[in-house]
Amino acid sequence: MTTATDPLLEQFLADHAAERLESYKELVRIPSISALPEHAADCRRAAEWIAADLERSGMDHVEVSETGGHPVVYADWLHATGAPTVIVYCHYDVQPVDPLDLWTSPPFEPVVEGDRILGRGVADDKGQLHLHLRAIEALLATRGRLPVNLRIVFEGEEESSSVHLDRWLEANRGRLAADFALISDTGFFDGNIPSITVGLRGLMYAQIDVTGTAVDLHSGSYGGTVDNPANALARIIAGLKDGDGRILVPGFYDDVVELTEEERERLRELPFDEAAYLEHLGLPALHGEPDYSTLERRGARPTLDVNGIWGGFQGEGAKTIIPAHAHAKVSCRLVTAQDPGRIFAAFRDHVLAIAPRGVRVEVRDLGGGHPSLTPIDHPATQAAARALAATFGRDPVYIREGGSIPVCATFERTLGLPVVLLGFDPPDQRAHAPNEWMDLGNYETGIRTIVRMWDEVARLEPADLGG
Amino acid sequence: MTTATDPLLEQFLADHAAERLESYKELVRIPSISALPEHAADCRRAAEWIAADLERSGMDHVEVSETGGHPVVYADWLHATGAPTVIVYCHYDVQPVDPLDLWTSPPFEPVVEGDRILGRGVADDKGQLHLHLRAIEALLATRGRLPVNLRIVFEGEEESSSVHLDRWLEANRGRLAADFALISDTGFFDGNIPSITVGLRGLMYAQIDVTGTAVDLHSGSYGGTVDNPANALARIIAGLKDGDGRILVPGFYDDVVELTEEERERLRELPFDEAAYLEHLGLPALHGEPDYSTLERRGARPTLDVNGIWGGFQGEGAKTIIPAHAHAKVSCRLVTAQDPGRIFAAFRDHVLAIAPRGVRVEVRDLGGGHPSLTPIDHPATQAAARALAATFGRDPVYIREGGSIPVCATFERTLGLPVVLLGFDPPDQRAHAPNEWMDLGNYETGIRTIVRMWDEVARLEPADLGG
Repeated sequence: MTTATDPLLEQFLADHAAERLESYKELVRIPSISALPEHAADCRRAAEWIAADLERSGMDHVEVSETGGHPVVYADWLHATGAPTVIVYCHYDVQPVDPLDLWTSPPFEPVVEGDRILGRGVADDKGQLHLHLRAIEALLATRGRLPVNLRIVFEGEEESSSVHLDRWLEANRGRLAADFALISDTGFFDGNIPSITVGLRGLMYAQIDVTGTAVDLHSGSYGGTVDNPANALARIIAGLKDGDGRILVPGFYDDVVELTEEERERLRELPFDEAAYLEHLGLPALHGEPDYSTLERRGARPTLDVNGIWGGFQGEGAKTIIPAHAHAKVSCRLVTAQDPGRIFAAFRDHVLAIAPRGVRVEVRDLGGGHPSLTPIDHPATQAAARALAATFGRDPVYIREGGSIPVCATFERTLGLPVVLLGFDPPDQRAHAPNEWMDLGNYETGIRTIVRMWDEVARLEPADLGG
Repeated sequence: MTTATDPLLEQFLADHAAERLESYKELVRIPSISALPEHAADCRRAAEWIAADLERSGMDHVEVSETGGHPVVYADWLHATGAPTVIVYCHYDVQPVDPLDLWTSPPFEPVVEGDRILGRGVADDKGQLHLHLRAIEALLATRGRLPVNLRIVFEGEEESSSVHLDRWLEANRGRLAADFALISDTGFFDGNIPSITVGLRGLMYAQIDVTGTAVDLHSGSYGGTVDNPANALARIIAGLKDGDGRILVPGFYDDVVELTEEERERLRELPFDEAAYLEHLGLPALHGEPDYSTLERRGARPTLDVNGIWGGFQGEGAKTIIPAHAHAKVSCRLVTAQDPGRIFAAFRDHVLAIAPRGVRVEVRDLGGGHPSLTPIDHPATQAAARALAATFGRDPVYIREGGSIPVCATFERTLGLPVVLLGFDPPDQRAHAPNEWMDLGNYETGIRTIVRMWDEVARLEPADLGG
């Protein structure tokens, strides 16, 4: 599938194939789970590993830069006089690995099986970060220069709502002048069709804590006299969505801009096999708002999902208690003009309004991000399209993704930059789940696509990019 | 508070006070948690410890008897010719200890604080079992005989729905001939008022398993297209009870015999301070069926409670997944003519009827027990009342307890025996919760009450007992 870039560079990549795979695995072996405090040192170790790699390749101003949380890796190369300047964003942190028993091999001991590499972060997002490292290395090694000016911003808190990044971007605004930002944290369309993501959903993430008594009660001695925090929590959650998946939080849909007929038409034209999708998931039925198609619901409609729920006895057998407390993590994917802060406030108010009065209920904001949309006809988007077409031998499709990359909206809002989402994950890569995998073909063609992308961008005038 | 029994026996108890406390602690130190498979050996060790104690006191036919699960300790003493024969039932297994971090001292390292002893099982039910051991020891040591014939049946699976006991009782029917059964696994009324329990609720215990996909899904990529097992579980649980606590399972209340006006009157006369109860619990409000008083709901009405719920991400921070599955343990306390098997079937049918169609739902029966009621005017109940009155200097009250002792109904149904529930736990002993405690005064007077009980029963004719 890979089509060659230039002969010298291809030779370099061929000569370093084994070394490249080993380096990829090395990065994956660092368990940089940003959400778990006990992995803070691992996050820093991952940042230092990446900085050393950039240093070896010949990047300038390489720095593990403090944020107050996990550091940002910054580096630049600004010697392409007259050519555009691009910020490249990836993240080196990964999701937690539980449930660990469902992994077929340990999550931080990557293994290659056929065309796939398995391990936490091999796709999201260390694989994509690593292919950028290798494109830079190959270009500098074979040409002694990059076609464009690059500023690297590799983050360590993307899986934790990027809590410190906004402030870091503000504080470092002086060295972030650029024409656009390129983010590699997305993937291909079903069937592994090369894609450019032109819409991302935002995120609101909250925790509901329901508290009854100070300690668990005997369900026989007290059952019938007090409310049960777990029952109360279930009633609250059931009051957040109706049976069809329509969200019941007042005002929730107020800022959702409906799809135009043209946008709906474009989604209908995508090669999407709903029966195959259902079979792949192994579910009895799909589920969601009846007035929208599955692809519309996936990319263009907001959602509300319980991400975790717990309370009381979870062991084998029967323990007859009324749990002292029960908890749920609940998040919403947001679209178009929905604001995560306003949505959190509406969510909190609704939860407190429907909270049973025999228990105490608290709602906490665990972070979020704005939705974002990128114009298809932007010259940088079109450069990415040409790079993909030249490498994969077919035009990419333009998709709206259900996921959220909070930094995308931040680049747009804080730095005023257009954002191109060019990512290489296969569509069912199990990001966030056990047995996450990356297609090694996508990884290799990804390197070539990035090289071509920089060559394409070098042909553009900075003035055309409007950065 | 203790009033003397006979001088020789009181002297024996005084001489062995330190030894008695040490022996009590020794039994509590064995972590005989019947619900957890990893504690099976501890359950057996507790049974062997008790058997050795009974042997030392001079009981006959002492045996650690196999059941297929945790063993029963059997022993008898049948030399009181012409006197009634009594089966004495207690249980040596205990509840799990989580949440461990809420214990002020390790649960299996009992400590004395003032008049209290703290530890898992000090009240429920090792404390009560141990006071029976000490009454037997003191009687045999000082009189060389017991006033009545006793058959000891100490069980090891009471906290796990007594799964093997029915079969054991059937198989051992030949050596279980008796006039009545005495069960010590209940407690005193609020304010630590000596009590005889004349009603116990039954139990139905089930687990609901909701399954979606084989692995957790990325909530961005899939949110809005599939149902979420945790949301679906919450909808199911919310469909089990209305906001007032009325159970919505069709047919659930069919076999509930309503309280008579006289029974309601008797409950109204009990010294119960609802404001103090609420304050003790530290809740904003009590909760339950509005047509019944708190004491009626606690003892005479059936309940439905979630005992545990879990699914998805429970760690710190934000993990954006749709959980692959979610689970809940749900139990019902049953009253009067409610049958646990019929109630389970109705519960399962209702859960499956309201189960969302985008997920798979299973309902499993984890065991149960029948409700039971003992007549107040039975001669054995009245003997217990006299023993309590003589020891505590006041008449006991007759209460209906919310808890369940499945074996109580089994003795009535399988062996055709009247059952007397004579227990000594203080009312807020935190059974099943962290920092379970026993009042050492109740424990000591309990020994004297049991001695007096056997003396009282010795004066009855077996024919009057109707066993």
